[in-house]
Amino acid sequence: MTLKLQDVQAAKKRIAPYINATPILTSSSLNTWLGHEVFFKCENFQKIGAFKARGGLSAVTWLLGKGQQPKHIVANSSGNHAQAVAYAARQFNIPATIFMPEYSSRIKIRATEGYGAKVVLSPTRDATDALVREVAREEGTYWIPPFNHEQVICGQGTAAFEALSELEGIDAVFAPCGGGGLLSGTLIATRGLSPKTRVLGAEPLNANDAAESLRKGSIQRLTEIPNTLADGAMTMAVGELTFEYLKQLDGFYEVGEEAMVYWTQWLSHLLKIRLEPTCALPMEGVRQWLKNKATKQRVLVVISGGNVDQQTTQKIWAQEYLDRPPTLAE
Amino acid sequence: MTLKLQDVQAAKKRIAPYINATPILTSSSLNTWLGHEVFFKCENFQKIGAFKARGGLSAVTWLLGKGQQPKHIVANSSGNHAQAVAYAARQFNIPATIFMPEYSSRIKIRATEGYGAKVVLSPTRDATDALVREVAREEGTYWIPPFNHEQVICGQGTAAFEALSELEGIDAVFAPCGGGGLLSGTLIATRGLSPKTRVLGAEPLNANDAAESLRKGSIQRLTEIPNTLADGAMTMAVGELTFEYLKQLDGFYEVGEEAMVYWTQWLSHLLKIRLEPTCALPMEGVRQWLKNKATKQRVLVVISGGNVDQQTTQKIWAQEYLDRPPTLAE
Repeated sequence: MTLKLQDVQAAKKRIAPYINATPILTSSSLNTWLGHEVFFKCENFQKIGAFKARGGLSAVTWLLGKGQQPKHIVANSSGNHAQAVAYAARQFNIPATIFMPEYSSRIKIRATEGYGAKVVLSPTRDATDALVREVAREEGTYWIPPFNHEQVICGQGTAAFEALSELEGIDAVFAPCGGGGLLSGTLIATRGLSPKTRVLGAEPLNANDAAESLRKGSIQRLTEIPNTLADGAMTMAVGELTFEYLKQLDGFYEVGEEAMVYWTQWLSHLLKIRLEPTCALPMEGVRQWLKNKATKQRVLVVISGGNVDQQTTQKIWAQEYLDRPPTLAE
Repeated sequence: MTLKLQDVQAAKKRIAPYINATPILTSSSLNTWLGHEVFFKCENFQKIGAFKARGGLSAVTWLLGKGQQPKHIVANSSGNHAQAVAYAARQFNIPATIFMPEYSSRIKIRATEGYGAKVVLSPTRDATDALVREVAREEGTYWIPPFNHEQVICGQGTAAFEALSELEGIDAVFAPCGGGGLLSGTLIATRGLSPKTRVLGAEPLNANDAAESLRKGSIQRLTEIPNTLADGAMTMAVGELTFEYLKQLDGFYEVGEEAMVYWTQWLSHLLKIRLEPTCALPMEGVRQWLKNKATKQRVLVVISGGNVDQQTTQKIWAQEYLDRPPTLAE
C-alpha cells in the first residue's frame, strides 16, 4: 500500500473548511435486536448529500496546494461524484464540465447543474469515460476521476478517519463498493488508526465485478449496465489503484436486491434518515458477519449518501418489509 | 393564557434526562430558492421518532414530582402519543395501556407494544376515546390525554423553547395542528421568549376542524374520519384547553394533500431526513406567508416526527414532484 494514514490526515486538513462534520447515529432498537452495537457515519448529511464531496475537494485542494490552478476541471460519474466535483470546483471558481451517462438519477443531473457545472450526457458509462479522456487532453484541463486517483481515495477515507477518531474499540468497519474509492480510503484510515479493526465491503450481487475480481485475482469488468437499484455501485469495474487496496480487505459480501431494499427501509425507519439503497448493502454484510460472533461486537457502517430520486424511492417502498424486524436468524 | 414560559421551562428541566437534544437543520438550496432563511427543528430525531415524547414525559414526570405514583397509565392516540406514553411509562416502570383506533399506522402500533405497553384497538377514534375515559375511572389509573392537558402542552412547547434559545431574531414559528398541543406549547414558549415572533399553524384542508373552529369561534368537530395522508393531524376536534391558545395564533393555513405531498418529497430530499407528511403542512404555510414579505425573514419550522409506514411512503412517492424546485411564485 502506497498511501498511508498521513495522506488521509493531510486530506482531512485540506478539506475541513469545505465539508460538514457529519453525525454518527445509532438505533437502540437495532442494537437490541442484533445484540451488538452498530454505529452509522451519516454521509447523507455531507455536502452534496454524499461522501463524494470529500474526494472531489481532496483532489482540488491538493492541486491548488501544489500551486496548480487548472483552467477547467472535468469529471465522469453517474451521479454523486459529478455533484462533488461541481461543488468542489465552484468553491474555487474553476469552470467544470461533468460527463454523465443518460441513465443517471435525474436529481443528480439537476443538482450537478445547480452547482454551476456544464453537464454532458452520453448513452453509456463507457461512452462517458471515453469522452472525458478526450477532453482531459486539452491544455489547462484537469480530470478528477471518480475513484482511481490517490487524492480522491484519501478524501473518501476521511469519513472513516473522523468516525474512528471519535469512537473507541470498533471491531469492524463496513462500506459499500462501487469503484472502490470509499473502501480503499476506509482501509487506509482504519489500518493506520486502528490496526486490529477489520475492514469489509459489500456490493450488489447484480453488479459483482469487485467480488469477481477478488476471486480471480485480476480486474473483471461488467459486460452490460447492471440491473440494480444501487445506482452508487453500478461502476463497470474497479480501478487499478483501488484494486490494490480492495485485495487487503478482511471480507466482502455480494448482496441481493431484496436484502438491499429490506435494509433501506429499515435504516430509513430506525435512523429517520433519507438514504440511497447503496448505503444498505453493507448492513446485510454486517448481519451475515455478526451471525458467527460469540461476543458483543462494535461495528461502524459508512452511510454513503442520500440522493435518491422519486422513481427509485417508489421501487424501494413498493413492498412491505417493516413488518419483519431485523434479526441475525435467517 | 394560564400557562406561562416558566411552566415550559419547568417541563424542560423535568424531561431533559429522558429526551434527545434534537438538531436544527437548514438547506442552503431552499434558502436560496425562497430568498429567506428557514430553520427546521427536527423532532423526527426525538425519542420514539416524534415531539410527542416531550408531552408524555412532561405529564409523567409532573405526576411523580407531585409525589403521585400511578399504578397504571392509560392513553388514547392514533400513533405518536401512544408510543410517547408507552415510552414515558417504561422509564419509570409503570404499566401502561394504550387505546388506539384500528386505522393507526401499523408501525406505530408495533412500536407502542415494543415499548412494553398493552395496546387495545377500536374501530374509530371516538370509540377509543370513550374506552379510555371508562378505564381512567379505575382507582390508581392516570389518563394522559394526547393534547388537552396542561403538562402535555408544556412538554410539547419545549421543542420551540430549545430552538428559540439557540437561534436569534426568528420572525415566525410554524407548527402543524392535530389536537393543538404542539401549537399551544409553541405559542406559550414563543410569547415568553420572543414576544415579537409570530406563531402560525397549519392543518390538512381535509381535516380542517381547527380552522373551522377558529372561524366560528367555537370548537367544531369533524363528522367522519378525514381523508388525509397526515395521520398526525387526523384528530376529530381540538381541546378546550388548546383552543384557548389556538385563538391567540397569528395565522393559520389549510393545506391541500398535493401541497403536503410536494413538501414531504422536497423536505426529505433537501434535509435528507425521513419525515411524516404532517411535518410538511407548515412548510406550505411558510411559503404562502413569505410571499408578501419585502424583507428577508428568519423562520422556524417544527418538524414533528418521522414515523411513516410503508403504505403511506408509497403514496407520498407515487408521483414526481422533485422536478419542480420550490419557489414563492404560484
